[in-house]
Amino acid sequence: MTASTSWLGLPPDTGFGPANLPYGIFSTSGSGPRTGVGIGDHVLDLAAATGDPLHATGTLNAFMATGPAAWAALRTRLTEWFSDPVHRRTVEPNLVPRDQVTMHLPIEVADYVDFYSSQHHAENLGRMFRPDSAALTPNWKHLPIGYHGRAGTVAVSGTPVVRPCGQRKDPTEDAPTFGPSQRLDIEAEVGFVVGVGSDLGAAVPLRRFPDHVFGVCLVNDWSSRDLQAWEYVPLGPFLGKSFLTSIAPWVVPLAALGAARVAPPPRDPQPLRYLRDDDDPWGLDIALEVRLNGELLSSPPFREMYWTPAQQLAHLTVNGASLRTGDLYASGTVSGPGTHERGSFIELSWGGAEPITLADGTTRTFLDDGDVVVITATAPGPDGSRLSFGEVTGRVEPAR
Amino acid sequence: MTASTSWLGLPPDTGFGPANLPYGIFSTSGSGPRTGVGIGDHVLDLAAATGDPLHATGTLNAFMATGPAAWAALRTRLTEWFSDPVHRRTVEPNLVPRDQVTMHLPIEVADYVDFYSSQHHAENLGRMFRPDSAALTPNWKHLPIGYHGRAGTVAVSGTPVVRPCGQRKDPTEDAPTFGPSQRLDIEAEVGFVVGVGSDLGAAVPLRRFPDHVFGVCLVNDWSSRDLQAWEYVPLGPFLGKSFLTSIAPWVVPLAALGAARVAPPPRDPQPLRYLRDDDDPWGLDIALEVRLNGELLSSPPFREMYWTPAQQLAHLTVNGASLRTGDLYASGTVSGPGTHERGSFIELSWGGAEPITLADGTTRTFLDDGDVVVITATAPGPDGSRLSFGEVTGRVEPAR
Repeated sequence: MTASTSWLGLPPDTGFGPANLPYGIFSTSGSGPRTGVGIGDHVLDLAAATGDPLHATGTLNAFMATGPAAWAALRTRLTEWFSDPVHRRTVEPNLVPRDQVTMHLPIEVADYVDFYSSQHHAENLGRMFRPDSAALTPNWKHLPIGYHGRAGTVAVSGTPVVRPCGQRKDPTEDAPTFGPSQRLDIEAEVGFVVGVGSDLGAAVPLRRFPDHVFGVCLVNDWSSRDLQAWEYVPLGPFLGKSFLTSIAPWVVPLAALGAARVAPPPRDPQPLRYLRDDDDPWGLDIALEVRLNGELLSSPPFREMYWTPAQQLAHLTVNGASLRTGDLYASGTVSGPGTHERGSFIELSWGGAEPITLADGTTRTFLDDGDVVVITATAPGPDGSRLSFGEVTGRVEPAR
Repeated sequence: MTASTSWLGLPPDTGFGPANLPYGIFSTSGSGPRTGVGIGDHVLDLAAATGDPLHATGTLNAFMATGPAAWAALRTRLTEWFSDPVHRRTVEPNLVPRDQVTMHLPIEVADYVDFYSSQHHAENLGRMFRPDSAALTPNWKHLPIGYHGRAGTVAVSGTPVVRPCGQRKDPTEDAPTFGPSQRLDIEAEVGFVVGVGSDLGAAVPLRRFPDHVFGVCLVNDWSSRDLQAWEYVPLGPFLGKSFLTSIAPWVVPLAALGAARVAPPPRDPQPLRYLRDDDDPWGLDIALEVRLNGELLSSPPFREMYWTPAQQLAHLTVNGASLRTGDLYASGTVSGPGTHERGSFIELSWGGAEPITLADGTTRTFLDDGDVVVITATAPGPDGSRLSFGEVTGRVEPAR
């Protein structure tokens, strides 16, 4: 089915056609947060349309916990509603214009994990930070490196980005100094949302990925490179990341991404058995775009990611760690091989050494106060259409 | 007040006298999880005794969120109940013998952070892992190093410890292999539980520690040293830690620890201003004990910790990261200067090079299947009494 087959009469390039059907949490001036489905320029009030209290809880968690059969059943029902004009009279009164709603954090985040799965990104950072060593650490091609982030500071798109303060130390200084971060950065990423949990002590095999993961959302993992550089040895990033992680308000169901699946890059060497995905790989052709103050800076290609979200899930649980509804794990910065395919300023400005000149003649190495970053993405839908993932945006505010 | 002034007639060495009053979540065969207060060999059913639904939610979170004034008011009330015989007739019916209850995870864990604040532990690990470098990394004495752990795998004492599987690579091998961890370890730690949250973007100054932190619990941060060694560069520990973190069922209120406060070790160099604690330091004289299969192996002294929990909280939030009710942060392995004061097997067996000989003649470098580890602790109470933190225990089960 394409967008044009709907009685809604949506334009072919809507991105929110009936083949997408992303879920989010919205409110209007007159009512509290509840579940909505993005369709064209509208949001379908799912709580009202279905009468199901599951969709009136203010997060997607309760619905996500119902599992793949229930997800599929609702998707089938929504598809029928939007495609068959017989439903127009009952559906249309529950459509709210998107410009009249406030979007909220779509999920109650349980644990947040951030991976590091773009070979191009890892090599770029390795070249900058460890110029005398191999660009990739010896483990990089054997496992998807990841770490836990702060779930409590995952916020919805639009949340102000207060410039963090903290310790930094220039190599030329004897001791650290305290102050606002001078190297505030973005990380353009794709996030995966767990719907169905798992038992403690039981690994989730790679092929069970679609039984646990509900959907996909855009992520901007704001990063302070100066705080991070001083703190991260030996236990990894902490305050350089924990001040804010923004996510898009829309979670695109995994079921919408059939046409977006592609073969991942070849792996050399072959990973250990629990990470082998030859039968059923989950590469995804998601095309990201990063804009600074409206200007397109970069187009990171998710299809280039070395490790897929199915491999990440298998790795995350192979030690018996359990999953919970609402777990969010992100891909790591998406960077492609090209200089205009990099998903962070530290790569775009090569550690600050090569300032980016903007259309207005100003330059940037990292973010200035007042800067607005918008990350968007699309993926192939059926019949040549494109699905939109909405946007994740944030404006930098001065340090407090 | 001492234990002996109570109408309960508790023995002087109870550890759970009326100067302690730790909170936990318990159930009996006849009723679901609710809040209890540990007193002698009994649990006071707080839901029944107060009639307050706040104490019938099955976690301490709702009560912890009410803040320091409410915490103090309830503590005053409990102290009166247990000290004045006039209350005996109303309190006694709500006392349940501790051997008739099941204890549950006391808090719903929001975010879990693990610090690395014992200088002796950090130096021991530095000497083992980086023999050609300084034992401490350059940042260690300038900030309390920490990282986020997995909140979803924090479990109550007694939860089986399933030996984790994962990747490890011996330096002599070309490629990693997969299998059960061969270096399963403990980390004896002290955890701090946040009651009152904070706003995103607002740092919590060091002096506000008792306005946010509700209490203290014992932690065993089970660790797989072989998984950890292979994965942890550059982003820190992940699967080597995330399979399980056990906590004691009792949260000792910060208000009980007045007599336990001591000066922390001198800091050299002086840290940055936001970490200075000369006015009001929060060193705590908590004496831990680690037993393997009943045999005392180690007595780690918390009073030796270089960074205090108040400094850890100030550091955790200095970048504007917000706190939530239920956040748990742990001290890092508690190790003292002595060889019998080390809080992990990797230190006790010096990386496996010096096996520990047990009373039964067997030796250990790391944990065997079937091993039972029990960590206990006490701290000074009023009038020479000792407060108990209960215990955190776990039995190692074979890999699945």
